[in-house]
This record gives sequence, C-alpha cells and structure tokens, in this order.
Amino acid sequence: MKSLKIMALIVITALSSVACNRQQQGEANNPALETILNRKSVRDYSTKEIPEEALNNLLKAAMAAPSSRDRRPWELLVISDKALLQELGGKLRSASMLQNANKAIIVCGDTTLSDNCWFLDCSAVTQNILLAAESMGIGAVWTAVYPYDDRAAIVSEQFQLPENIKVLAVIPLGYPVGKNTPKDKFDATRIHYNKW
Amino acid sequence: MKSLKIMALIVITALSSVACNRQQQGEANNPALETILNRKSVRDYSTKEIPEEALNNLLKAAMAAPSSRDRRPWELLVISDKALLQELGGKLRSASMLQNANKAIIVCGDTTLSDNCWFLDCSAVTQNILLAAESMGIGAVWTAVYPYDDRAAIVSEQFQLPENIKVLAVIPLGYPVGKNTPKDKFDATRIHYNKW
Repeated sequence: MKSLKIMALIVITALSSVACNRQQQGEANNPALETILNRKSVRDYSTKEIPEEALNNLLKAAMAAPSSRDRRPWELLVISDKALLQELGGKLRSASMLQNANKAIIVCGDTTLSDNCWFLDCSAVTQNILLAAESMGIGAVWTAVYPYDDRAAIVSEQFQLPENIKVLAVIPLGYPVGKNTPKDKFDATRIHYNKW
Repeated sequence: MKSLKIMALIVITALSSVACNRQQQGEANNPALETILNRKSVRDYSTKEIPEEALNNLLKAAMAAPSSRDRRPWELLVISDKALLQELGGKLRSASMLQNANKAIIVCGDTTLSDNCWFLDCSAVTQNILLAAESMGIGAVWTAVYPYDDRAAIVSEQFQLPENIKVLAVIPLGYPVGKNTPKDKFDATRIHYNKW
C-alpha cells in the first residue's frame, strides 16, 4: 500500500513536470511569431510534390487577409502544370525560378471590386501565403508584377486576363533545396515613440 | 525491486503518452496557420496595458516583412501617450477607436528608399503586425490612411512628418473587449487552375 502511494506520487510529479514544461514552452515560444521571423525568400525547389491539402491551406490563408471595406478583391490563379510553369518562367525574367517550382500562385485583384486598394489588399493576401508556406516548410518568394507594366503585360497575355483583373505578384512554390536563412532586418532607428 | 520496476514502467508509459499527445497536436495543428485564419479586426479594447515585450514583438514582426529589392522602406511610429491617442482618434474619424486603444503603431514608408513599392512593402509590414498581435491575444485593426489624401494630411500634420515619409496605416492596439470572431471569407469561385 505504501509503495502504491509512492508510485502515485512519482507519476503525478513526473506528469506535472511535463505539463509545466509545456506551459512554459507555450509562453516562451510563439509559433506564429516564429513563423513571421523565420520567413525567407526561397528560390530553389526540389521536385517533391506539394500535397493538395497544403495547397488548400495556402489558398485558405490567402483569403483570410483583411481588405479595405471588406471588398475582398482577390482572385487566385494556381499553376501546377509543369509546361506552363516552364513557359511563364521563361517569359517572366523576374520569376525565372518558376522553371523549377512545383506550383505557383498568381495573386490578382479585381479593379471593379476595389479600384483604389486592390494592390494593398492583395499584398496582405501575398504575405499570408508566404507565411502559411513557411509554417508548412514550403519555400516561396514574392516576385513583383505590379507596378511593372512590362511584367503585367506578360502575365495578362499568357492567361488572357480580363481588363479588370490586375496582377500583383507571382509566387513560385516548392520544397526548399539548400540552406535558406531569414535575414535579421530589425533596425531600432526606424522606430519613433510618440513623435517623429 | 519488482515494485520499483513496475513504478518505472508506469512513469515511462505515462510520460510517453503525454509526449505522444504533444507530437500529435503538433502535427494536426499548425499554430501559425491558425493565427492567420483567426485574425480579425478588433475595435474595442480594455484598459489593460500592453507589456513592452509584446510591443517589441510586434515591432520585430513588422520589420521581418519582405520588401521590393530588399529596400526596407518602413518607418514605425509607436503611440503610447494617451492624450495623443485621444487627440488623433478625435481628428481621424476612420481611426476613432484610437480613443480607447492602449497603444497604436503608425506604419509609414520612406519614398526616398522606395518610391514605387513602399505601399506594398508596408502592407506586408501591417499584415505582420496584425498577425503577431493575434498570436499574442492583442486586438488590432488596419485603418487605412493611404490612399486617402485627407487622412494622410491629418496624420502628417499631427506629427510634422517630412515630405518623403508617407503614411500607409494606423493600427490601434489593445486587449479585446467582447467577442470577436473571424469572418470565413474562403470562396472557391475565386480560385482558377492553370487558366483563367
């Protein structure tokens, strides 16, 4: 009976120590914040396939972005066709890494829904995709299309986009090859307290 | 001796069960993705103080944003002075909730560093701040200044901003009051596969 009590005590102590560690970890670590700080531009990708579930998570994350007056002006063009990735990567020099990407998401805005803010809302969409990718170990990079007319013309022609659909960014996606480390861009001189 | 072995076995079993649960939780849940999907605009705040560490995390997250050609055109104006929050909230109708905010971050861009993309880069900065706030249980909302000239004039005059410093957004911050639920904005009709 005495040994049973001792056993119970040991088990409870061990369990509460683990529980306590977990709580401390939860306070010390913030996985979302870590994802934000660890995000980096990844431009080299393996041939490993991005699963459908992961792609869907990227698309859900995209549309969880805020938008001016909740107008939600986004349209998302998913490219998984390898020949198409090759072709577009060949034409669009700023996104040449499409040629070794597994997939891509092209973030577009509908100017009939938001003529004055689509590019801001779609920037939040793009950032959500980049962060969701980072959180799943998927490499990604924001290659700008807007505000460059020459790049916009290439993408619009490739997909015969309607006049009201503008392209903000092309995001090549794939599992990273090589070592990719985030830049530490924190600069205290950029912070101003209560006055300029 | 036998009871010691049994004890050890019980402790090991209990510990591995806890460890296993933790791992399963880590696989099933993606805290960063959850943060992205749970982010919501919060406009009512309690009087609870945002600790300095949390504020610093918001500022670190802000500057972890990507920027066009890595030009990092951001400047961050932190408002903690309550009289100033009152005053600006009174003048800037779109950010009237500043009057009950605990703090605010005003996201600005330097056009001498990036004349053509500062508002895109600063949108990514703003989204990072909103997500970092969500991850720490802090309420926040993107109140647009750019591209509205009247709002920009109010903020620029309040802080006597130099000509090259443009304001993208004012983000009031505070611990949430009341129930705030994220909108489900996922819309499969906005997704296009390989062609428009």
